Order: sequence, then structure tokens, then C-alpha cells
Amino acid sequence: MSGKAADPGFEARVRASFAKQAFMATIGAEIAELSAGRVSLRMNVRDDLTQQHGFVHAGAIASLADSACGYAALSLMPADAAVLSVEFKVNMLSPAKGDAIIARAEVIRPGRTIMVCRADVFSINGKEEKLVAAMQGTMMVVRDKGLSD
Amino acid sequence: MSGKAADPGFEARVRASFAKQAFMATIGAEIAELSAGRVSLRMNVRDDLTQQHGFVHAGAIASLADSACGYAALSLMPADAAVLSVEFKVNMLSPAKGDAIIARAEVIRPGRTIMVCRADVFSINGKEEKLVAAMQGTMMVVRDKGLSD
Amino acid sequence: MSGKAADPGFEARVRASFAKQAFMATIGAEIAELSAGRVSLRMNVRDDLTQQHGFVHAGAIASLADSACGYAALSLMPADAAVLSVEFKVNMLSPAKGDAIIARAEVIRPGRTIMVCRADVFSINGKEEKLVAAMQGTMMVVRDKGLSD
Amino acid sequence: MSGKAADPGFEARVRASFAKQAFMATIGAEIAELSAGRVSLRMNVRDDLTQQHGFVHAGAIASLADSACGYAALSLMPADAAVLSVEFKVNMLSPAKGDAIIARAEVIRPGRTIMVCRADVFSINGKEEKLVAAMQGTMMVVRDKGLSD
Repeated sequence: MSGKAADPGFEARVRASFAKQAFMATIGAEIAELSAGRVSLRMNVRDDLTQQHGFVHAGAIASLADSACGYAALSLMPADAAVLSVEFKVNMLSPAKGDAIIARAEVIRPGRTIMVCRADVFSINGKEEKLVAAMQGTMMVVRDKGLSD
Repeated sequence: MSGKAADPGFEARVRASFAKQAFMATIGAEIAELSAGRVSLRMNVRDDLTQQHGFVHAGAIASLADSACGYAALSLMPADAAVLSVEFKVNMLSPAKGDAIIARAEVIRPGRTIMVCRADVFSINGKEEKLVAAMQGTMMVVRDKGLSD
Repeated sequence: MSGKAADPGFEARVRASFAKQAFMATIGAEIAELSAGRVSLRMNVRDDLTQQHGFVHAGAIASLADSACGYAALSLMPADAAVLSVEFKVNMLSPAKGDAIIARAEVIRPGRTIMVCRADVFSINGKEEKLVAAMQGTMMVVRDKGLSD
Repeated sequence: MSGKAADPGFEARVRASFAKQAFMATIGAEIAELSAGRVSLRMNVRDDLTQQHGFVHAGAIASLADSACGYAALSLMPADAAVLSVEFKVNMLSPAKGDAIIARAEVIRPGRTIMVCRADVFSINGKEEKLVAAMQGTMMVVRDKGLSD
């Protein structure tokens, strides 16, 4: 499922919000694809993202997938709404290594208050892609500025 | 539940493995507490860990909690075993801000093949602690070197 | 964490709602304990609740734990609110067998819109209790009658 | 992803195991579709499966989806293996009502020890289908008879 954007200016809004996520810069993530209800984020594999066996840390993968889910959800929200991660669950399917990691997220249930998303995360090695993780998460549409309850 | 360590040298083994997790250095995480079946990891709040509203990114929190769970599990494993994250689920409970974040993990079910852990994540602001996230995850005891299946 | 009930009549309200959950009668579940923010549900082990190896089916356990979480959340809600399960995640820790199963749930984060709960599920065999499952779930406070978005 | 069955007799093996799940009979579940790596289970909506608002209980839906995931995984396992649910996470997307519920599961990562599955659950009302829940779960390949660790 993709979705219908409530805000025709969703692309600029998503890009502006993503640019403010300092942690995405820290892990080297960039927007690779963006449409209504779908966002892909990509990061290069780097030594400073690894765990003890030299693979990309599950937390770095979860971070990429969480932001991809969050922005897939935000792309369908009204212009005055913000997005918060309520929760996510991620399965690590294979050791993540190669040139880059890409998380492809889509909204599977766009709601007024709750948006549910899935993300498939792939390692990219030359021309080969391999599924390395799968996320299912819940995002919330937040309208007030407090963002806290 | 804490647990009984199968390897009396577990503490040195956990510290050595943690020191190899480059991503933990990237986010500024350190071991705060370590006993058999329990590990706490702590990181200072920094601008480069934030999301678009200035709070610590859910992915950074998940990364800290995942490593805490993984090392709580590893502390109970035999000396020749490695740990892999099978999956984890994390709820974001409150915006994470303050001086530091601490993830306190414990093994709730130590098994021969599968260890199930929970982590409570707190923000620290001066002397005040606040619960900001809760994780439940599944860790695997891996004995072969391939680590891949 | 327990909690503070917004509605002093929460106990009668929870019991009345539970009595309407026909599926709880189907699996033989009863309220074992009930206080603000905490609910325990108990069911006898029966042949018609089992999976292929003769243990209690993971789904029956999840059902018990989900209702326990839902009513722990409802106990803290205002009198005019209803509860919906947004999502839950459950780990099966040991084969569930014995005389009975009890799911003990508590709210770990009471919010205005979202309540996060954990449940520990035990098998009871004579006087012995064993942890057989662990749940972490998200419940929603619903105020309108539509209950659908 | 579907998959390649390790055992050409997988269909008879899955059907025989399913027939032993007494709880599936209790909720009225039947196998609707079965191929290597994919299983769909269907149950009619009945009053004794409902929650307090008259919709199908989240636990009944989770039960159906868990068994669908388990048998999707078992269909790819060697003939001498058994399947156990390690954990699952399910999002409730819409109130479940109508004539019947169908859970369509597939293995997204077939491993030697761990199989990861997703299930989409639909309500069926006449000719109309609606997505009402989404599961992501972890199944384990068990070779010894103890099944308990």
C-alpha cells in the first residue's frame, strides 16, 4: 500500500524534517526515494557503524529503518502534524555488510492518529541486494507542540 | 531475574567484546554496570544523537538498549559462544532529553540457544531519572564462527 | 509501576467490560487480581487450548496476556474511555503446561492517549510457578464511540 | 518470498500437525491455502470469539496468525523437525468483523535454526476484504524431542 498525501507539499516537508535529524547525519543516512507513503533511506557501510564481528550494528540498522518508517508516515500527514515513533520491532535476518544499507519503508495502515509501517532493509554489495532486516512499527500523528503525551 | 554465569571470566569477555563495538563508541556509550545477566550502558546526550525535535533519536536509544540486552545475554553464555540479536521491540515512552541516557538490561529467560531480555531506558537529568523507553528482545547463542545462520 | 486511577469506580467498570469479552469465556479466563494499573487473568489448562505437542497454544497465552494488559490500562482511564489494543509482542519462554496459566499485567507508562503495558505469564503446577511468556504491548485510550480510527 | 521445501512431503506433514492443534479447532480455524513457505488459515467470525465491543478479539486474531506463521515455517523444514514460536508481534489495524477472518503468512527469511515470517490478516465480508492486522514473528526449527531447550 502506498497512500494519499493529505498535504501536497509533503515532499518538501519531509526533506526539511529529515535535514533536522542530526542523528541521521551522524550515521550518514540520506533520502534515496520519497513518495506518498513510501520512503527509502540509504547509508554507506562504515567502520564506525559496526558491532563486534565487523557487521553493521543492529542499532544502526534499526535507526535507519525507524526514520524511514517515520517519514513514510509523515508524508501522509496533514501539514501541521508531527510524527513520533510509538514503538517498533525489528528482526535481524542476516549479517549486514557490503557497500551500503538501504531501508525501504511503507505505510501499511494510514490512520488519523496511528500509522503502521513496515520496512525491509537490504545490504547492497555491488549490484547485489540482500534482505538483512525487517521492521514493523507504529507511528503517531501528533498535532500539539508539546509532543509529550 | 539475574542469572548464573557459565563462564567465570564473563566480565572480561563482555568488556573486550564491547570495546570492539565501534558503533557504541560512535554514540558515546560506556558500560555503567555489569554483573551476571545484567548490563547497564550509559551515553551522554549530545546534539549529534537527536531527531527533528531535539530529543534523542529513537534509533540511538534502541542501539543502546540492544547492546545492553546483548551483553546481558553474553554474560551468561559459555566462553566460546558469541551473541547475535535475533530481534527486539522497543516502546518509546517519553521524549528523551537531559544529561544522559542509561539502558538497564537483564536476562529474563536464559536458555541454551535463546536468551530473552528486557531493558528499561531512563533519561538522567541532574539527580532525576525518568523512564523513556522499554525494550524486549531475543538474543541467540552462536557457537560457530560463521555467525550467519 | 502501578498507577493512579482517574475513575474511582474503575473496578466495577473493568469487571463489567471483562464480562462482555466472550472470547475470555471461551478460553476459561477469569480475573484473579485487579488494582489500579494491575490486572491478573487466570485460565485452567484444558485440552482444547493446546497446540500440536500438547502444550497451551501460544495464541491462547497471548490472548490471556493481551486482555490482562488491556484491562490494566483501562483501570487507569477516565470513566468514559474505551481501550483498544494497538499492538503487542510476546516471547514464548517455556512450554506452557500444568494446572493453570496466569498472566500478570501492569501499566509501565500511563499516558493520556497511549498506555504501555507489560505482562508476565506463568504456568501453575501445584504450588510451583514458572515464567512461560512475556508480553510488551501498546494500548490506546479511545474516547469516541466509533472505535475505528 | 516463498521458499523451497526441504521435505517433499511437507503438505501432508503440515496438515497432520495442524489437525493436532486442538486450539485451532476451538476457534474454528481451517487451512485455506498451503504451499512451500506460505500458509493461509481461515476462521468464521463467531460470537464466542469477540471482545467487549463485538469485534473479534485481538487474541483470536493473533492465534490464527501465529499458527499460519508456524505452519508456513514448518512447510520449509526437514521432515524430522518441529516448529516452536519464539515470539511474535502483531498490530491491530482495524476492528475485525464480517463473515470470516483469513491470515496469510509467508516466510521472509528461511534459516537453518530461525525462520522469520510475516502474516497479513484480513476480514472477509461478502466479496470485500479488509486488512485488519499485521504480524511479524520468529519461529524456531527444533530437532530434539524435548522441545524445551
